[in-house]
Amino acid sequence: MRDAYHEELAGLTDRLVEMTRLVRSAMSRGTTALLDSDLQLAESVIAQDAEVDRLHMELETSIYELMATQQPVAVDLRTVITALRMAADLERMGDLAEHIAKLARMRHPESAIPAELRETFVEMGAIAENLITKAGSCIASRDIDLAKELEEDDDAMDRRHRRLFRVLLSKDWEHGIEAAIDITLAGRYYERYADHAVRVARDVVYLVTGTRDTDALTG
Amino acid sequence: MRDAYHEELAGLTDRLVEMTRLVRSAMSRGTTALLDSDLQLAESVIAQDAEVDRLHMELETSIYELMATQQPVAVDLRTVITALRMAADLERMGDLAEHIAKLARMRHPESAIPAELRETFVEMGAIAENLITKAGSCIASRDIDLAKELEEDDDAMDRRHRRLFRVLLSKDWEHGIEAAIDITLAGRYYERYADHAVRVARDVVYLVTGTRDTDALTG
Repeated sequence: MRDAYHEELAGLTDRLVEMTRLVRSAMSRGTTALLDSDLQLAESVIAQDAEVDRLHMELETSIYELMATQQPVAVDLRTVITALRMAADLERMGDLAEHIAKLARMRHPESAIPAELRETFVEMGAIAENLITKAGSCIASRDIDLAKELEEDDDAMDRRHRRLFRVLLSKDWEHGIEAAIDITLAGRYYERYADHAVRVARDVVYLVTGTRDTDALTG
Repeated sequence: MRDAYHEELAGLTDRLVEMTRLVRSAMSRGTTALLDSDLQLAESVIAQDAEVDRLHMELETSIYELMATQQPVAVDLRTVITALRMAADLERMGDLAEHIAKLARMRHPESAIPAELRETFVEMGAIAENLITKAGSCIASRDIDLAKELEEDDDAMDRRHRRLFRVLLSKDWEHGIEAAIDITLAGRYYERYADHAVRVARDVVYLVTGTRDTDALTG
């Protein structure tokens, strides 16, 4: 039987999963806004980031209260500490989705993404969606095998990221400096988004195993 | 009189200040490496980031142990929670200094920074150094007036960052796409470095006052 304290701990997990839903939606719409130069969609992502921020703040407040009143130890302490970290990573992923939407808005009605890079950004968007979906499942299920899959998805993102630079630096590039800047920044946002998803997955591994496989967090 | 527990809490502050010293040194050398295309200096920054990472991991471990064994409450709880957050921000600032050094290394023996942007990067380096020095003083002194100064320094960084784009997008830009990509990324690293310094300062304010003036962390 669960007491109120353990209900609260379980509630943290539910709210983290809720954050992953909001972040997935933001990134999915942000990518579409970027590819289709959809101003209305971009504005909706920008406006709704406040919701992610609010959830993050509420989670932090709950965690601080829980720590102060319940003084969790052992696995419960790991639960609250990782929840704090994961909430911060998810909040940042929301910011990155917002940055992508802002890029779409800045270039509207033009598109920031030239035709020859469209497919790469479609793929980066799909990987991003995959990452956050898996991160949400990991948080809910504490499945560490799934957590390890995110490292591979991150590698897939890095390959797309490197492809961007190859295209930008090829002799055929004809879209000038402004487009190159946009793509450099957009590429960085997707890459950082993937890094934060991997951090979430690593925190699930830490939560379950009590050790950190690897601490070399890159980015 | 201080007991062992309060010695440990004070020790967290000392180690955070030590992290700021390492990060300041990394950023200062990273900037010089970037401006002077100094390969040896760049390599030293890249190699020494492991030291920042090690300090970060040690701090985290100490904090988890302290939480588990001492179950801090009230201001002591705020001390450990903010120490966790500040350590993470400082670790990330070390990464960003390393990224700048890697950019210097990648372009060596060329310089990634064309002459007309040299002065702007000198200024960004100086602001970065100022920010981390003040962040270290804030952590040590818990001086919230000083903490507020960091917001202004961050604004000064943002102005330099916008100047970069004006130069990149001017008709006079003659350094091509590769240099534009380098400068876009370098600019982003300095800007994010400043954001993390501001987060540290805001955590000092939270530590002292128990409230967050503003939670809208941007980047």
